[in-house]
Amino acid sequence: MERTELENLGEFGLIKRLSKHIKNSNPTTVLGIGDDAAVIDAGDYYTLITTDMLMEGVHFDLSYAPLKHLGYKCAISNFSDIYAMNGKPTHMVVSIGLSNRFSLEAIEELYAGIISAAEVYGVDIVGGDTVSSKSGLVVNIAAYGKVDKDKVVYRSGAKDKDLLVVSGDLGGAYMGLQILEREKAVFESTPGVQPDLEGHDYILERQLKPEARKDVVEILAQLGVKPTSMIDISDGLASEVLHLCDSSAVGAHLYEEKIPIDPTVVSAATDFNLDPTICALNGGEDYELLFTIAQSDYEKLKGNPHFTFIGHIEEGSSPTLVARDGTAHELKAQGWDAFLEKKKGDSETDSQV
Amino acid sequence: MERTELENLGEFGLIKRLSKHIKNSNPTTVLGIGDDAAVIDAGDYYTLITTDMLMEGVHFDLSYAPLKHLGYKCAISNFSDIYAMNGKPTHMVVSIGLSNRFSLEAIEELYAGIISAAEVYGVDIVGGDTVSSKSGLVVNIAAYGKVDKDKVVYRSGAKDKDLLVVSGDLGGAYMGLQILEREKAVFESTPGVQPDLEGHDYILERQLKPEARKDVVEILAQLGVKPTSMIDISDGLASEVLHLCDSSAVGAHLYEEKIPIDPTVVSAATDFNLDPTICALNGGEDYELLFTIAQSDYEKLKGNPHFTFIGHIEEGSSPTLVARDGTAHELKAQGWDAFLEKKKGDSETDSQV
Repeated sequence: MERTELENLGEFGLIKRLSKHIKNSNPTTVLGIGDDAAVIDAGDYYTLITTDMLMEGVHFDLSYAPLKHLGYKCAISNFSDIYAMNGKPTHMVVSIGLSNRFSLEAIEELYAGIISAAEVYGVDIVGGDTVSSKSGLVVNIAAYGKVDKDKVVYRSGAKDKDLLVVSGDLGGAYMGLQILEREKAVFESTPGVQPDLEGHDYILERQLKPEARKDVVEILAQLGVKPTSMIDISDGLASEVLHLCDSSAVGAHLYEEKIPIDPTVVSAATDFNLDPTICALNGGEDYELLFTIAQSDYEKLKGNPHFTFIGHIEEGSSPTLVARDGTAHELKAQGWDAFLEKKKGDSETDSQV
Repeated sequence: MERTELENLGEFGLIKRLSKHIKNSNPTTVLGIGDDAAVIDAGDYYTLITTDMLMEGVHFDLSYAPLKHLGYKCAISNFSDIYAMNGKPTHMVVSIGLSNRFSLEAIEELYAGIISAAEVYGVDIVGGDTVSSKSGLVVNIAAYGKVDKDKVVYRSGAKDKDLLVVSGDLGGAYMGLQILEREKAVFESTPGVQPDLEGHDYILERQLKPEARKDVVEILAQLGVKPTSMIDISDGLASEVLHLCDSSAVGAHLYEEKIPIDPTVVSAATDFNLDPTICALNGGEDYELLFTIAQSDYEKLKGNPHFTFIGHIEEGSSPTLVARDGTAHELKAQGWDAFLEKKKGDSETDSQV
């Protein structure tokens, strides 16, 4: 029998291969695999469905991720996928695989984080599964939401000359992870040393307790702006721009100088001899929203502190990064590859297999 | 900090503890945790949601479970939960955690089984997640379905003197597992010996490629019978009768001599010096449906080869097993305990955490 190694395919290659065999037949299936969430016709509205699996040792490290924060993050990463469809999450089911290394109190901590996120975002926990794991902790959450039929936003709707907009700022979660990994390494080589996390509150919170951009969906509705396309930033800006361009069959010009990066991210990146732009482009888990709007909506978002215009759609061109010096570069994603040895924290994904 | 060991709680104890903190606030949540699936008001009908996580080394053993069958079984175990609400599964999302020990071809085999189940049961695969696992294979499926509002059946509706009915026959999946475990042990001690599976087709199929009872829901509808309560048999008959009685706040009399057991199960059990009744009561994964009907519906099901009357509901009594010799015994479940070392195959669960 033939044997094709997964590392030769990568995650998105695997998804493409597996998806090929899937044929949907249910007339209520509006959109299956290929966006942040599936879209099901529920009659008066659309139901949105998404799921995420997080594995210990791959997506999180319990030596520095408190269980409560971990639970919170698992939940919001799903909510973020629903917001990326311009929807509202309403229900979730939670599966947990755990070994007897965990006590009841530990699991209650994890659950407290999930419940806290459920309360903050107005989502009900309606079911789940708890099973025994022979090794690490596994958390799988599936979230459901709804969206008015005329409000749903796909990855595929970007049109020529639309403006590329991003919420918040980028690279923080990635830099937070670098700090945590550094302090863990110091602690492991010199036990007893207290971790030096001072001054890094913002980026640590971006990594350990990120929020999903519920507010963005609400603000856009208030401003009367319906994005032409949208995706959440879980794998890094570059990867998401490429997904959006690929789904919409367009190119884009992304301007390096426009990418919003918090000064504390710049300063931490400098400490690590990292280019802040690279952190923003390839560091994952920021859970901001990337979207496009028609030029006619520009005035509605102009000057709004939640949003930054970072470029525009160019039909017939490739996705391009325009550097500060004006030179143009083909936009590439370091990408997420589940099957190569890599740093933790780059491995979030919201891809629908 | 206090440390309560999970093995002192058991799965259902853990579920109770975790559920205590969950407060649902969404007005569309009709039923959250505590049945085979959650029930959400979708306007004209109810949406049903359920999820199951299966872990390698706990729920399945790849040394004898072909990947294709495993995929099929993961899918139908979710569908079974939807049928147990008298509903129809329509959509599913599939999360898979896997290591590079698996090739693309292996994952395609697993997926082929999931797709096959999706086609047979008319369910669309609309999304998922693929992630890297540091150890074994993990499969999590969440399934969605629908049911007319006046057709939904809960665990909690059993009334005094209702008749206790089961579909198909029981204990087969458990005995199939015993055969597979025996032949694995033989093979491990004497490599090269071919497994002796002859004459065990039925019970092997019950274990390796079980079906969910879609037909039962359809037959009941055709006969004009709406069960007063229903649950699927994934943990063994005893455990499910106890759940049903507990949810309905009633007792039951279950007659040992009525429990349907296939002759090949009896014969295999005898070979293993096992009591076939114990296999049916405590062996899991049969995926039959256990339900109660009003006495007035008796004539509609009487003589139907799909169904066996195994007892009746008794308000104010405890769940009781009436043995062949007429003696009454308190019904006890060996139960499923995720946190004790135990045989594989007992550990299925459809409990909603």
